[in-house]
Amino acid sequence: MHRTKVTVAEGVLDANETIALANRADFDRAGVRVVNLMSAPGAGKTTLLERVLEEGLGGAPRVGVLEGDVQGSIDAERIAALHVPVTQLNTDPGFGGECHLDANMVRSALPAVPLEEIDLLVIENVGNLVCPAEFRVGEDARAMVCSVAEGEDKPLKYPLMFRSCELVVVNKIDLLPHLDFSLEDLLGNLERVNPGVAHMLLSARTGEGVDAFADWLAAVAAREPAPL
Amino acid sequence: MHRTKVTVAEGVLDANETIALANRADFDRAGVRVVNLMSAPGAGKTTLLERVLEEGLGGAPRVGVLEGDVQGSIDAERIAALHVPVTQLNTDPGFGGECHLDANMVRSALPAVPLEEIDLLVIENVGNLVCPAEFRVGEDARAMVCSVAEGEDKPLKYPLMFRSCELVVVNKIDLLPHLDFSLEDLLGNLERVNPGVAHMLLSARTGEGVDAFADWLAAVAAREPAPL
Repeated sequence: MHRTKVTVAEGVLDANETIALANRADFDRAGVRVVNLMSAPGAGKTTLLERVLEEGLGGAPRVGVLEGDVQGSIDAERIAALHVPVTQLNTDPGFGGECHLDANMVRSALPAVPLEEIDLLVIENVGNLVCPAEFRVGEDARAMVCSVAEGEDKPLKYPLMFRSCELVVVNKIDLLPHLDFSLEDLLGNLERVNPGVAHMLLSARTGEGVDAFADWLAAVAAREPAPL
Repeated sequence: MHRTKVTVAEGVLDANETIALANRADFDRAGVRVVNLMSAPGAGKTTLLERVLEEGLGGAPRVGVLEGDVQGSIDAERIAALHVPVTQLNTDPGFGGECHLDANMVRSALPAVPLEEIDLLVIENVGNLVCPAEFRVGEDARAMVCSVAEGEDKPLKYPLMFRSCELVVVNKIDLLPHLDFSLEDLLGNLERVNPGVAHMLLSARTGEGVDAFADWLAAVAAREPAPL
């Protein structure tokens, strides 16, 4: 008797990876580079995007935005006011509201994203420092925003998030004079969990340092696609 | 032929509710009231607890703390320095780090919590505005902390969290002069998602208004147990 042994796959994360690769293939075919932008709630992702979209990117890549939120379309409306193609993706049909985007949710939104009209898609993930880091969605690059108002200890408490990004944007530096906060401690903690990771200091509110983030986005838009 | 129809239970949330009730029965038997304290990362839960524990609660209930974190014991060490019984509960054995506490995780920590020596247990949940609101852990009361640095729109973007709490603590009001932030808009948004919910304004950093939170904790400690 012939026997075949089948090992049950790892499940949800394996399935996610398969769909993430399918997303990446679609993005590559359309010549679109994709950034997965993550942070805690209220760290300033949308304000930062508003700033860079207002001021424009070097090389003028055409930018689109996919907004992930549990409910509502507040951020999408803010971005749409800048005449940038924006697609809202709400996670609330699932289980009281999913706390992250996964590859399948992004896939379900793709028919509404005008991939032929853009060069760079920024996916603004749900505000959360845990689960978004666990699900690739087909992105070329991951960046996160952390606000100095959140304290210095966040890299130690949410290491997977800080470790999974190639760029850490430290936002709200205009508040530094008004906080008991040590930038040196934050950067030391960051170095402990993700040695050598790129970081930049800026204030989306005042505009200080925002050009560096615009330059980074433009550089991602100009990249060759990484191997799948 | 006799037929019996069995409907498959709702699954994870039903199982959670069953264990939450078992936790509550244990808390009630020990005469301990329990607060589930939630917030986004860096909103100031631990600093607020430090303040009220330093200053003491009216009626002097004996307080214990259960610290929920993905990794590490930074917050537990801060609380332990105040000579309060504190138990660390890390969620990282699960799935890259669970983004919330559930009833079973709390249950697994109970043997390490000195219930006979305390009157009030404060459970500091994982910093996250989505999933913690979906899992009861056996608490008598739920409170959340939101920081003015997070922006006015959070009640609209994370309505389940703001709706599931009986008290919303608005923290970091010392930063108000340095932010583009409308307290009126925040409170209006809060009223939209949870009409009539109690709120208080305070700064855990300066201590302004913190006595109101201490009074609320003392009042919860003095409550009769609610029906299971």
